[in-house]
Amino acid sequence: MLTLYFAPRTCALASLIALEESGLLFTTKKLNFAEGEQRSPDYLAINPKGRVPALVTERGVITETPAILAYIAQIAPAAQLAPLDPFEFARMQAFNNYLCSTVHVNHAHGRRGSRWADDTAAQEAMKAKVPQTMAEAFEVIDHKMLEGPWVMGEYYSVADPYLFVMTGWLRPDGVDPIHFKKSTAHYAQMIERPAVQRALEREQA
Amino acid sequence: MLTLYFAPRTCALASLIALEESGLLFTTKKLNFAEGEQRSPDYLAINPKGRVPALVTERGVITETPAILAYIAQIAPAAQLAPLDPFEFARMQAFNNYLCSTVHVNHAHGRRGSRWADDTAAQEAMKAKVPQTMAEAFEVIDHKMLEGPWVMGEYYSVADPYLFVMTGWLRPDGVDPIHFKKSTAHYAQMIERPAVQRALEREQA
Repeated sequence: MLTLYFAPRTCALASLIALEESGLLFTTKKLNFAEGEQRSPDYLAINPKGRVPALVTERGVITETPAILAYIAQIAPAAQLAPLDPFEFARMQAFNNYLCSTVHVNHAHGRRGSRWADDTAAQEAMKAKVPQTMAEAFEVIDHKMLEGPWVMGEYYSVADPYLFVMTGWLRPDGVDPIHFKKSTAHYAQMIERPAVQRALEREQA
Repeated sequence: MLTLYFAPRTCALASLIALEESGLLFTTKKLNFAEGEQRSPDYLAINPKGRVPALVTERGVITETPAILAYIAQIAPAAQLAPLDPFEFARMQAFNNYLCSTVHVNHAHGRRGSRWADDTAAQEAMKAKVPQTMAEAFEVIDHKMLEGPWVMGEYYSVADPYLFVMTGWLRPDGVDPIHFKKSTAHYAQMIERPAVQRALEREQA
């Protein structure tokens, strides 16, 4: 049995959707970030990094969204959530890695600036730039990376839930998603999927 | 034939080492960051993100270090640079993703702060925190993540060149590596490898 540790309105939603798509048996545990549960000794024993998502398996714990997404796809081959061909798989991983190391990092400067500077004026300066950095990243995604209708073209994959989460952050980050036609169309398609609906319900439960 | 676009003293060194370990035929193109070659129209046609590394293959371009590393391992199976088992592969990918989305990002705040704030005082505040954030990340790596002697235990993998590059950034980032015994021992083992020597020579050529 798999257990996903998550918190609502975080990137863990991508893994939650992927699990819903996979057909795998799983359960979830919701952490209360407002109460700092991600820093509790119990949770740090599971993930010493104090972050979500963490996927607990019978063999151990997997962390980091791109690694969890690829793992879910590989252990649920019938769901066809990732290409088997190494080149296509690498293209999908490159997309997911751009989301984790650039897009998510840009977003985090709006609310987690204290990770990178102690000075509050510096944190405000970081926050002020988030609309620009998120828009610049989505320029690249929308015009150079997103094939459509899905990230990998005609092939739905675990990159799609991850992009869905990032696109959903645009408006709270001060960016009007209307500028990004392919990403917006992608978001609208995603929200119709039963797996996405189930994941969103589970977030709110 | 594979072509790796790289620049010296960047994370592209990890991919260069992996190629040297793989036994694959490849060539390299060195970009001059001081002259802004990564922003030239010719290079942006290869990688619209304007970053290194980029691996040009006969089928197209792969970017992002963890994706390139896994790809090299998968197309050179005889070199055994990545586990085939999905759980072990996911553990390796989780390690590499931590390096790209947390460790490399911490490091980048020392020299690329303008990515996230326009204000020069804010950039100085970011720079000031780099020794702390890099040390905190290596606390987790050294005590919770690195099995030793290699990242995956007895199994050398493409996670090792990537960790080698990050450990090499500690001293320039104001952190004394001596605090991190396993990482320092790992670095010392890596530097002895012929593939690492060849990659470093190629950087300087």
